[in-house]
Amino acid sequence: MRFADRLDRVLEEKESLLCVGLDTVLEKIPASLRGEPDPLFAFNRAIIDATLPYAAAYKVNTAFYEAYGLAGWRALEETFRYLPADVIRIADAKRGDIGNTAMMYARGLFAGLGADAVTVNPLLGGDSVMPFLEEESLGVFFLCLTSNPGSRDFQHIQTGEGRLYEVIAHRVRSWNEKGNCGLVVGATHPEQLGAIRTLAPELPLLIPGIGAQGGELEASVRAGTDKAGRGALYNSSRAILYASAGEDFREAAASAARETRDGLQRAGKRS
Amino acid sequence: MRFADRLDRVLEEKESLLCVGLDTVLEKIPASLRGEPDPLFAFNRAIIDATLPYAAAYKVNTAFYEAYGLAGWRALEETFRYLPADVIRIADAKRGDIGNTAMMYARGLFAGLGADAVTVNPLLGGDSVMPFLEEESLGVFFLCLTSNPGSRDFQHIQTGEGRLYEVIAHRVRSWNEKGNCGLVVGATHPEQLGAIRTLAPELPLLIPGIGAQGGELEASVRAGTDKAGRGALYNSSRAILYASAGEDFREAAASAARETRDGLQRAGKRS
Repeated sequence: MRFADRLDRVLEEKESLLCVGLDTVLEKIPASLRGEPDPLFAFNRAIIDATLPYAAAYKVNTAFYEAYGLAGWRALEETFRYLPADVIRIADAKRGDIGNTAMMYARGLFAGLGADAVTVNPLLGGDSVMPFLEEESLGVFFLCLTSNPGSRDFQHIQTGEGRLYEVIAHRVRSWNEKGNCGLVVGATHPEQLGAIRTLAPELPLLIPGIGAQGGELEASVRAGTDKAGRGALYNSSRAILYASAGEDFREAAASAARETRDGLQRAGKRS
Repeated sequence: MRFADRLDRVLEEKESLLCVGLDTVLEKIPASLRGEPDPLFAFNRAIIDATLPYAAAYKVNTAFYEAYGLAGWRALEETFRYLPADVIRIADAKRGDIGNTAMMYARGLFAGLGADAVTVNPLLGGDSVMPFLEEESLGVFFLCLTSNPGSRDFQHIQTGEGRLYEVIAHRVRSWNEKGNCGLVVGATHPEQLGAIRTLAPELPLLIPGIGAQGGELEASVRAGTDKAGRGALYNSSRAILYASAGEDFREAAASAARETRDGLQRAGKRS
């Protein structure tokens, strides 16, 4: 099955647009888990158990594991092994390199970790991304427009074919022969999000940086989803992971995930 | 000491512009080492021992280790631990992400692995690269212009401020307050290499993809080095690592490294 269809089915079945971001840092793990042999994984397992009813996807940010070296890489592998197959498992690695090297990255993330989708930096262009796109069932979300101030340095730059992020969206469409491409687009500018959705209506969006609720969320859901109210994953990390610093972190994470899921669904229905 | 000065001193002391790329794949390791508990590291150690007299730097391509999961990450750590402090140790990881995540990547590569320099993808802009630039002694080579066909997709695109790779060179100059920035520029287009050298005379260049000899190498050295004949590292990987598939691979790697080093020095003197 093509990744786009697979994602669509999960969003429909789980009635959720929520992606939970596992950006786990040791210092924020509740005291009771810090004595575990693998505290990063122990925390992730607890968060996954608590949020699974509400999440369509999990996004594991590889940087947070690499920072802890071998122990971190082990926690990364364990986390992917623990995630169930009925959610979309995303390795947020933002890799990007030429030919042979891209092939090795793809192998490590898809075959090695068992990710269903990865994030990729498209700067090196077409031939650099092809090794990630070989399997139609495995998705690639390409960095298109981020919400940080530095996005002005390059992504917003005006070219003969529009702004660079628009050029990226165009190129990604041309790489989407197998229906396994998507885009990463920051949530903070709903009008640009809407422009990208119009530009590339068939590409699923991965949207980081949503708050728990409010009008911004609504505008972002209206702008980012497709006609069926799907086609987009909204990621929330810290607001769910660290909803409570105490021993009630499981319940707090479950509540935060449920509220975010519900907020996304409501926003989708209003739009 | 600022990274640029540190690199300059190593290039001068070692009388070499050669960077040996450790893109190690299990299938190409000689049979006698495949039974070792950590064959990737055993091979790297043999290559480092054989080529150390001729190399100013080693560039370890993280993709080739991540592809082997935990065992690969262990080999990556062992390799960095083995590299001596009088060469420049580069983690070729091409990372790039925003704020918090960039900080975690920087921690993993500099503090974790012990790299002296890393490669970074600049697409996310200024604030995304700052966490990599905190220590003046630790270098960052930013992807600027690559030699693959896909470089035309974005890097060559015409903007109001010149081609995108020229815009990148300009921005990187503005990030170089601590003297720890450099650029990655492909060797295959000496005229563009020369243009970038002129545009950013103070930035060290990391130049992948050189062949063992020939006129192209000469043109590339002429274009890439500074007035003192330094300021650039020329990377060779497979031509050295796999100079022989047999049990004489150490001697073959040493010869290939010596010849490449000598070719670079000769080209530098002629220029």
